[in-house]
Formats: sequence, structure tokens, C-alpha cells
Amino acid sequence: MNRDKPAVIRGAEKLKGKVYIVGAGSGALDLLTVRALRLLEECDVVFYDALVNPEILECAKKAKLVSVGKRCGYASTAQRFINRTLVAAVARYQKVVRLKGGDPMMFGRAQEEIDALKAADISFEIVPGISAAFAASADLGVSLTKRGVSRSVVFVTPRVGDGEPVNEWIPPASAGGTIAVYMASKQAGSIQDALLRSGYKGSTPAVFIESASFADRRIVPTTLAGIKAAAKQLGGGPSILLIGDVYEDVIGESSASLVAQSELILARQ
Amino acid sequence: MNRDKPAVIRGAEKLKGKVYIVGAGSGALDLLTVRALRLLEECDVVFYDALVNPEILECAKKAKLVSVGKRCGYASTAQRFINRTLVAAVARYQKVVRLKGGDPMMFGRAQEEIDALKAADISFEIVPGISAAFAASADLGVSLTKRGVSRSVVFVTPRVGDGEPVNEWIPPASAGGTIAVYMASKQAGSIQDALLRSGYKGSTPAVFIESASFADRRIVPTTLAGIKAAAKQLGGGPSILLIGDVYEDVIGESSASLVAQSELILARQ
Repeated sequence: MNRDKPAVIRGAEKLKGKVYIVGAGSGALDLLTVRALRLLEECDVVFYDALVNPEILECAKKAKLVSVGKRCGYASTAQRFINRTLVAAVARYQKVVRLKGGDPMMFGRAQEEIDALKAADISFEIVPGISAAFAASADLGVSLTKRGVSRSVVFVTPRVGDGEPVNEWIPPASAGGTIAVYMASKQAGSIQDALLRSGYKGSTPAVFIESASFADRRIVPTTLAGIKAAAKQLGGGPSILLIGDVYEDVIGESSASLVAQSELILARQ
Repeated sequence: MNRDKPAVIRGAEKLKGKVYIVGAGSGALDLLTVRALRLLEECDVVFYDALVNPEILECAKKAKLVSVGKRCGYASTAQRFINRTLVAAVARYQKVVRLKGGDPMMFGRAQEEIDALKAADISFEIVPGISAAFAASADLGVSLTKRGVSRSVVFVTPRVGDGEPVNEWIPPASAGGTIAVYMASKQAGSIQDALLRSGYKGSTPAVFIESASFADRRIVPTTLAGIKAAAKQLGGGPSILLIGDVYEDVIGESSASLVAQSELILARQ
């Protein structure tokens, strides 16, 4: 902590620029907001995550492009480096864009960057983006909420190695709400186990959407009992897992065979 | 049901256009997605909800503008009328936009319109929008999720007179997740009661944001025990209620007095 302090103060002394923490959305270029596009076109530097679509970066015609961050689950040291980089950038650049996948305010670790900017008295603005669950829902043509079926949606991400129990966030099975799990593919087994233990039925409809909003998106319908197996059908792209009765029609005609398969998988586990 | 059938079949026979169910976002013109803006500029007709910002409608320069729907909580008859109107529109217009506030796939009753379009074999596409919780979070500068504080967000809307119990969706207080309540201002009392009964502390930070993303937005920080009273400070604009420990800094310096006030309010109730 003490070692960080001088750097923060030095940045603040020369302060002139402003930092825009901008949501890049789910990936498709034209799902950027008009505000985000304008800021990219006007800005002097872009600090971007590895998940951001290169086409979006091309909009930042006059900016220096700087990659920061890994695909998923920053180490804390990496996050501290990003915080310091943003604080330092306003001494050199007028308009600084920090570009994050999806919406910066959900699973984006934006708060740590905001807190660093506040501590250094740097002005900032947040620009929302289309989060993956909304792009995935648009691709599927299935609403997250539906009258008489689901009037709530929980957005969640399983732990990434920090020891928090995976099942704390699980809403009561009786609620009948929709669940959207971000960064789920590698944790499919523990998500499945936690939901089954909490009273969710193995036949609950579920669907993986990989690379939502891209032309090469992949949609893998399954059931809760089948998500561990279904995750293996995904490629390496970012994926989201949607679970709930609203997806009954997605599994559609193959529904009966999927449920039978689910029971078989469960019997084996 | 039988009475609807002939109308659906007549629409399908003359079918030529396509329906775009488009999210207008939280309200600010430049928080439209680039895709939504392009579709508005190109389309032949826009069927819009009353909550949509008139500036956004002005983008649809060559389109006929048709208001459908009320501010909040359609009657089912009104929804059936909208469904039939969309189905009929493709017989007259090539590019039909159905413009909904926020994102169409959350609390937008889009599923009923999608099902009607599917039944009539009409091609459609969903275009996501910035939902109010994300615009409100950007306004506040507070992330919905925060490492070590909240790794889940539940989006919910209380019942609008259809008899479903308000507390079914409530996540366990122990989960420490963030709660975003849409269309909360008129149900503030029952939301407060339901959360307190479920074990949430009266001192849990909460904040109303009215007219998120607009220049005249109003931010009313409070605590769970104070939301019923805080709702009375709101004007008539659309508002969202955010609840959770991530908002501790929003109530900030006035926190101690707010908590004291909360206890007082609770003691009286």
C-alpha cells in the first residue's frame, strides 16, 4: 500500500485528462452504444481487455492502443498495475478510454479502478455496455423474464479461485427465476452440483451461448443435469449459461430425449 | 383465442416485412446502440412505448410513429392488441421497429410479441438495449458487483396486481448480492417489508435513481428501513431501486445519521 502512494500523488499533480470507463458490449461492433463509439473515435489512448473485438478497437483511429489484462480472472497484482496505469495516463492524455467487455459495472472489476481514480482526484465517467446475457437472449429470441414463468433474473459468476462458496448466490428453486451464469464453462460441474443440491430439478432447461452477438455464435441447449457434458461442446470463446423454465422451448422437440439423457447422466454420477 | 386466429392467418398470407424488437435503452439518446440507431433511421414504422424519449423517436426520420402501450403494467388486452398490430404491420411495411424502453428481454413482455410473430411465421430480430440498472450504476459510479462484497445481482420487478407473492424472488440475505428492483417506487412498502422479513438488516444501504442517464436524474440514497419514506421524494419519472452493501459509500458521510433515522422509522412501523 505505502509503495503505491507516491505514484498516485505524482499522477494527480500533473492531472489534466479524464478517464472514460466504457463498456464494449457483447462483441458485435454495432452493439456499441453511440456514446461509446464517439468516445473511441475521439480519444487519445485506449486501455483494453483481451476479450475486446479488434473491429471495435479499429474505431479508435487516432488513439494509442494498449492491451492490459487477461481474458478472465485478473491477478490482483495485474489489477493494481491497471489502476496505476489509468492514474498515470491523465498526465499524458486528455481523453483516456478504459474499454471493458460487456458492461463495466457487472463482473468487470470496475470498482477497483474507480476507487483508484477517486483516490487520485481524477475525473471519470462510466459508459454502459450491452452485457452478454442480453446479447445472448437476443440471439436466442427468448426473454429472460416471462409473465407467469419468471419475474426475476439473477446474474452471477462462479468463484475464480478465491475460496468463496459457489452456492451462496443460488435463489430458492421455488422462485422460478432465470439464472445467467457468466464465465460458466469451466465451472459447469460445480454449478450443476450446487443447483441440484439446492433443490433444482435435473430436467430444468439450460442453454450455453458461446460468442453471443457474433455470426459464429454457438448455442448448446441442454438441461441442468446435462450442463457439465454440454460445456465440453463449447470452443474457446466467451460463453454464458442461462438456466430456467423460460428455456423450455429452446430445448423444444428434443426436450423429451434431453430429459431422458439427463436422468441417465445423473444416474451415472 | 379462436377469435384471434383468422387475423393471424390473414397477416401471414400477405407477409413481406420483418419486425425488429429494439431496446431503446435507459433514455439518453446516445446510449442507443449503433444498430438500434441505424434501424430507426431506416425503418418504415415504429411502434413505441410511452416511456421512450421523444429525442430517440426523432431519429426515425422517414417512419410513421405509432404509440402503443402504457407507461407501466399493460393490461393483457392491450398486449394482445400490440401482438396483432405487429403481425398485421408486416403486410404494409418492409421494416417494422417495435421500440421498447431498456432492454426488450428483461421486464419488457417481449416474449408475448415474439410468440405472436413466430405463430404467424414472421421473421424478427431482437436488438438489445442498455437496461436501467446499468445506466443507474454508471450515474452512481458504483459497480453492481464488487470483489469480496457482491458477486451476484438479482433483477426483479414486484408484482403488478397479478397476485404473485412479492417475496418469492428474494435471495438469501447471507448471499450478500446486489438487488436491482425495477418499477419499485409504488411498491416500496411491500419490498421493504418482504426483505426485512427475509432477514435483511434495516441498515442495508439502498438508493433510488430516477430518470437514470438523463441530465435531470435524481439520486436518493437511503437504507432498507428508509425506502418507503425515500420513495416519496421521487417525482413521476421511471425509477430503479438498488439495494446492497456495495452502496455503503453512496450513503457515505450521511450514513450514520441515515442508520439512526432507519431505526427510528422501523421503531414507529
